[in-house]
Formats: sequence, C-alpha cells, structure tokens
Amino acid sequence: MADTKVAIVGLGTVGTGVARLLLDHADRITRQTGRNVILEHVVVRDLAREREVALPPHKLSDDLANITNNPEISVVALLMGGLEPARTVALRILESGKDLVTANKALLAEHGTELFDRARELGRSIAFEAAVAGGIPIITNISQCLSANQISALRGILNGTSNFIISRMEEQAMSFAQALAEAQRLGYAEADPTMDIDGSDAAQKLAILAHIAFGARIHWTEIPRVGIDRLDSTDLQYARQLGYRIKLIGLAQLSQGQLEIHVSPNLVKIGRPLSEVRQAYNAVTVEGDAVGRLFFHGLGAGRMPTASAVVADLIDTITGRAPITFRALDLWSHRQSRVDRCDHSQVMGRFYLRFAVADHPGVLAEICGVLGRHRISIASVIQHEATDALDGYVPLVIMTHAASEGAAEAAVREIDQLKVVRAGTVRLRVLGG
Amino acid sequence: MADTKVAIVGLGTVGTGVARLLLDHADRITRQTGRNVILEHVVVRDLAREREVALPPHKLSDDLANITNNPEISVVALLMGGLEPARTVALRILESGKDLVTANKALLAEHGTELFDRARELGRSIAFEAAVAGGIPIITNISQCLSANQISALRGILNGTSNFIISRMEEQAMSFAQALAEAQRLGYAEADPTMDIDGSDAAQKLAILAHIAFGARIHWTEIPRVGIDRLDSTDLQYARQLGYRIKLIGLAQLSQGQLEIHVSPNLVKIGRPLSEVRQAYNAVTVEGDAVGRLFFHGLGAGRMPTASAVVADLIDTITGRAPITFRALDLWSHRQSRVDRCDHSQVMGRFYLRFAVADHPGVLAEICGVLGRHRISIASVIQHEATDALDGYVPLVIMTHAASEGAAEAAVREIDQLKVVRAGTVRLRVLGG
Repeated sequence: MADTKVAIVGLGTVGTGVARLLLDHADRITRQTGRNVILEHVVVRDLAREREVALPPHKLSDDLANITNNPEISVVALLMGGLEPARTVALRILESGKDLVTANKALLAEHGTELFDRARELGRSIAFEAAVAGGIPIITNISQCLSANQISALRGILNGTSNFIISRMEEQAMSFAQALAEAQRLGYAEADPTMDIDGSDAAQKLAILAHIAFGARIHWTEIPRVGIDRLDSTDLQYARQLGYRIKLIGLAQLSQGQLEIHVSPNLVKIGRPLSEVRQAYNAVTVEGDAVGRLFFHGLGAGRMPTASAVVADLIDTITGRAPITFRALDLWSHRQSRVDRCDHSQVMGRFYLRFAVADHPGVLAEICGVLGRHRISIASVIQHEATDALDGYVPLVIMTHAASEGAAEAAVREIDQLKVVRAGTVRLRVLGG
Repeated sequence: MADTKVAIVGLGTVGTGVARLLLDHADRITRQTGRNVILEHVVVRDLAREREVALPPHKLSDDLANITNNPEISVVALLMGGLEPARTVALRILESGKDLVTANKALLAEHGTELFDRARELGRSIAFEAAVAGGIPIITNISQCLSANQISALRGILNGTSNFIISRMEEQAMSFAQALAEAQRLGYAEADPTMDIDGSDAAQKLAILAHIAFGARIHWTEIPRVGIDRLDSTDLQYARQLGYRIKLIGLAQLSQGQLEIHVSPNLVKIGRPLSEVRQAYNAVTVEGDAVGRLFFHGLGAGRMPTASAVVADLIDTITGRAPITFRALDLWSHRQSRVDRCDHSQVMGRFYLRFAVADHPGVLAEICGVLGRHRISIASVIQHEATDALDGYVPLVIMTHAASEGAAEAAVREIDQLKVVRAGTVRLRVLGG
C-alpha cells in the first residue's frame, strides 16, 4: 500500500485533536483512503511548550521549511488562528506544491480571494469544512449534497460561545456578565470575547456560507450585525412568556431574487428546531427548492468535533474528492456575485420592542401612535402593573406584525425621544419563515 | 463546454422529479459539473401513460437498448421500484459501461452484493444517496463527512409513512386504522402498506446504514423488527403522561464491541430531537467518537426531496466524486463483517409494559413478583381507578429500569399466563442513549 505524507501547522486545541486522530486511528483513515496516511511533520510556534500528544523529536519543529522543502508531504492542515502569519504560511504551503486544509474562518473571510486565486493558479486545492460550525459538515452538505438545489434560505446558530451564554442566562437566570464569566471559566469564551459576542464570528461564518450557497460576494464587515452584549435577562423572560426563546441567528435568504443577510439576536418560536439548541451547540437550517427544509445540529467547536471535520477534509483531499469540489465551486474567484443584496432597511420582519415608560396615563396611546404613523401594527402587548417600576419607569413589551427594518428603526428612534420614554428601547427581530 | 449525457429508467414520482431538475435547472447542474448535462433518454414501462414532464418523442421509449446501446450516455438513474426487472436492468446498465445511480433501497438490500461486485469487476460505480431518508444526505454524511470517526450509534426515524400515522394517532387521537386510511388518502401510504407499517422498509434502510457505518453485513430480514400495526392510541396517551412520545426507531449501536440492531416503536423522551419529528419527516442521530452527536432532520420521501438526492448523485458521478467514494467504501464486498452482532436477547433497555389486569386486590403484587424474579426493577407505575375498566379489565402501565430483552420477553410471557391478566401485554422499548 502506498504512503501519503501529511503535515500540521499549529498544535493548539484543534491541531492536537487532528494529530491524535492521525496517530491513534490510522486504521480507519487507511480504510477510507486506501493509503497509509503518515503524519510526517508538525510545525509549532513555541517548541518549549508542553504538548498533549507525543511526537518523535524529528517530527516536531518551529521551521516551516521542514514542511515546504519536503516534497513527500502532499497535504498540510493549517491550524493556527489569526490572520498573520497564517496568511503567509498558507501561501508558502500552496507555493510549495501542497494542498491545504484549514479551520481558520477569519483567514478565509479576510483573504479568501487571494488564497483561492493563488491555489487555482498553482493547481492546488483548499478545503475548509472545519471553518464553519465545527463538527457539523455544513460546507460539504451545501456545496455537494445539495448541489441540485437553489438554496433559498440559511438560518443558523453559528457561534457556540454566545449560545452558551444565552442558554445560561435563560436557564439559570444569570446576567450577561455572570454568564460570560462562567463561559470564560469553562473555556467556552476567550479572554477577549469581543468577536464572539458582538456577532463578528457568526458574520464571518455566515459570509462563507452565503458565498457557497448563493454565490454572494460579501465581506463579513458588510453584514449588518447585532451582538448579544446588550441582551438583558428580562428580555429572555418576556420572550418566554410570549412563547419564544432568544438565539443569536445568522440569516441569509433570498427575497424576490435579492439577498437578505444579517446576524442578530432573534426571538425563535419555542418548538422550532433552532429554539431547542442549547449550550455550545450549533445548528443550521437550510432550505432548497427541491429538498425542502433540512436541519443540522451538532457541536460547533471543541477539539475533537473540529478535528473530525479537518481529518474528513484531509481524507477528501487525499482521495481526490476535495480537489474536484474546489475546482467546481470556483470560490472567491473574480467571478461576479450571483446575487444582489437587498437594501437592509427594506428587510421585512416582526419585531419585539421593550420600552421603559413612565407610569402615566396615555403613554401606550402615544407609543402606538408613533408606530401607527410608521405603519407598524401591533400583534401583542405585555404591560404589568407598576410593581415592576424601576426609577419610575415600567417595562412595556410590544410584538409587532411585519414591518420593514427601516420603519422599525425610525419608529424606535422617534419613541426614544418621547418625554414619557427612557431612551435605549430594546428592539429584537422575530425569526420568520 | 463538453457534454455529458445521462438517462433515466422509470418515470414515476421520483423519475419525474429528476427529469424536471435536469430539464428545468440545467444551469445549476452545469455550474456544479463544468459540463452540459443532457438528459438523453428516458425508458419507461408503459409508453401510453400520461406524463407530467414533456420530452421530445425520440427521447422516450420502452426499450432499454436505447440506453445501453448508446455509448454517449455515461450515467443512468435507475428509478423503478421492486426487485425485478430492476435487478436485470441494473446489471445491463453496468455491463453496457455506464455508472449507476439508484433510489431503490429494496434492490440494494436484496442484491447489493451481486450489483456492487459486478460494478467493481466492470470498473463502474453505484451511488444511492436517495435510497435512505430521501432528501437527508445521510449516506454522504456517514460515508464521507464523518470518515474520521468510529461511529458508535445510529438512531433514526426512517419511515415517513409510519411516522405520519403515529403523528396523526397522537395529535388527532385517531385509531391506527383511521390514521392509516388518512395516510393512504393523502398518498403517504401505498395501497398495500405492509412494508412500511411492519418495520420492513425501515429495516432495509437500517441494514444499508449499518453496512456503511459499521461494516456490518446483515440481511434486513435478520434485523429484529416490530411494526406499528399493533400500536394503540392508549399507549400514545400513557407515553405522553410519562413524558414521552412513541416513534418507530431504527437503531444500530455498538455495545462492548458488538452490534445491537433492531427496528421497533420506542418511547422517546419529549425534548429529545427525535421526539419532535412530526408527520412524514425523517431524522437520524449519528454518534461518532470524534464528532459527538449529530442530528439530521428533513423530508424522507416525496418527489423533489428524493430527486434532490438523485441529482446530487448524478453530479457526484459526473464530477468523479462518487466513483472515488464507491471504490473507497468497498460496500457489499465479500470482505468479512467488521463487527459481530450481539445476542438480541441480551440487549439491554428500559421497557414500557401495559397490562390488562382484573380489578382484584393483589394483582400488582403478583405482576411485580414475576418481574422481580426476572430481575426487572420498576421505575414507575400508572394505574387509574377502575372507571377505565373494559370487560372487567383495567390498564396497568409499568416502566422498568434497564433489563435485557430476553428477561423482559420471558417475564411478559409468564405474566400473560396469570389468571388475573388478559394475554396480549404491550411491551415497547424506551429509547436510551
């Protein structure tokens, strides 16, 4: 049986998982590839650091040349995070004639065009199943299994950290700060959790999915996004009373031929599969014109689930499936976007609005008047007696019927300036479809 | 751009859907394959029958030679049901040098070895995503996306007809016969629904999945199976009271290195994803040692969902991915089973037991005595007052702790012979894991 030699750059959480699968489970990888797949070399930044995986000394170094100069290595898993030196390393790997597998979504979201163009020029492939939703094979499902479909909608819980935080806030009645601290203590959130909680991480993943599913060429920073950092446990409780849970949803869907795309906390009707996604799990709903609605649920992060996706990519690259997909998809090419984005202010949806209002007669009428002038009609209202009052203000919750993002935003801006309302009204989308 | 010519045998529900995708959406198939994919010929049994898809007369015939003698056709979708002439047609297609795509699970379950051996001898491939769970791409997910994993468990709702019937029985308090009649009226059940309701259809699909996931070589008729035809709406109601729904579950899982495999109605705890699968939907939970637990949910049958899977297979065959997978999997070869089956009587599980007992003192003690002698301990009991009595018998429901299948069966057999019990005790498994 012939040998195939592979290498890893980066031996952090995911890199260690990949090394373990390659070292401890060579039998199953051989069965899938028909070859002896040998982990030939691992490059790390800090040789002194203690590792959880045992490698003979000659297989571990801090010099990328040990990979790029070894013509026997045909595929490399790039498992370091961040943009640099990851970008430079990726280019050097491709230029040394090797195929690339990576889990680095930020790298793809930022430098996809450069890397994919270079790989195409060089006749190499890039596989990146692990970059989105960890163990859920959503990239392969969309790009291969659903290839007969026009995808019409993607809705996903793509960030496990924020889902964990929201779950804790809901189930344990914790504040955002308490839940974040717990997530950090348990390793679900990083020391600087900004990208996770402000929706940036979900937006990067959504940009990749929308690129594959819709041919949309959108930089993740162009995706309107609202994070969970301003979420209050009060809102989780009101949502619950109304029959909803709140989830950070990345959504991309076609509406009259144009693409609606955003990341935001959404009220999701209890009973819908996305409402039941707990803790650090991820989930994605995909709608296609032939297949109907498919739902995927699994671990979106963590050592072994992510390593599962990386090793599947290695196997697909070694067997030749990944290069076929890579060529067919023509991702991040200079080909034009296959879809235009709709004007975000025109995006329709239902809204949850929580006002802090003075406990005076006529307040509700005044607010309803503003909503009415913006042609926003009201589906339901919760206002409890003034025992909830805080600094003289009581919460008033309104669920609207469908209204445009722009109208809802303008109405809330106007209401926030009423004398009887404290500024800072909470406005959340209600997941439709 | 080069042409690739494909053909279809069988223009029933699925064949019509596949023809529509090929004719109406050639653009997306071209984008995925880089080729003009042309539906060159369709063979049907009855030329006189009216068709829902318009084909020029020279592209439609009842003569398979129009496909097998045309060297330009490289892939054929075999979309007729049943075993013969499907088997003969499949062999003729392979022998004429064409790759095969099929949705015919019965054909694979019965003649997999012969067909796959012949395809290997001839250097051809067979793809069959549509044979299991319709639109859910479970075959590709297990055989490709999860290839880095040792799968430890598969649990699925694999038969949409029986799930529809159970859903109607539960939601509308219908009897089995009423729900079956409605399923037939709506086209969810065939005139002869035997294979769907007695668990055979689910067992055929489970045999295919277990073959791929575990390397198990089990003929579907060897899989212990209990259908839904003896299910009573009383049991759905008791299950509900206990916090469960009843679902027809196909299960294959490793237990101490041996394979537990069966199809049966199971009590599934409400809140678990499988408990929420309604109507004609299918769903599969897969557990792998790296990926953890993945859950897939989608339409398990119907024209377009199944056609979505068939066309994905056509695309995979044309691009070369399917042949790679076909060679790697080495399915239905004469290779030995990679796993032994465990003795079904030793399979552990919790049980729901519904007895019809005489309304006498001491009955519960007598039944508990028998269970105790078989070392079956009791988790909970429901016995209502005698207003429920029917012909002098009242229902008694017992949920057990874990016990072996053999012990539970023997205990029930013994209890059924007690004078105070009417024979015909209902025994259902409770889904573990």
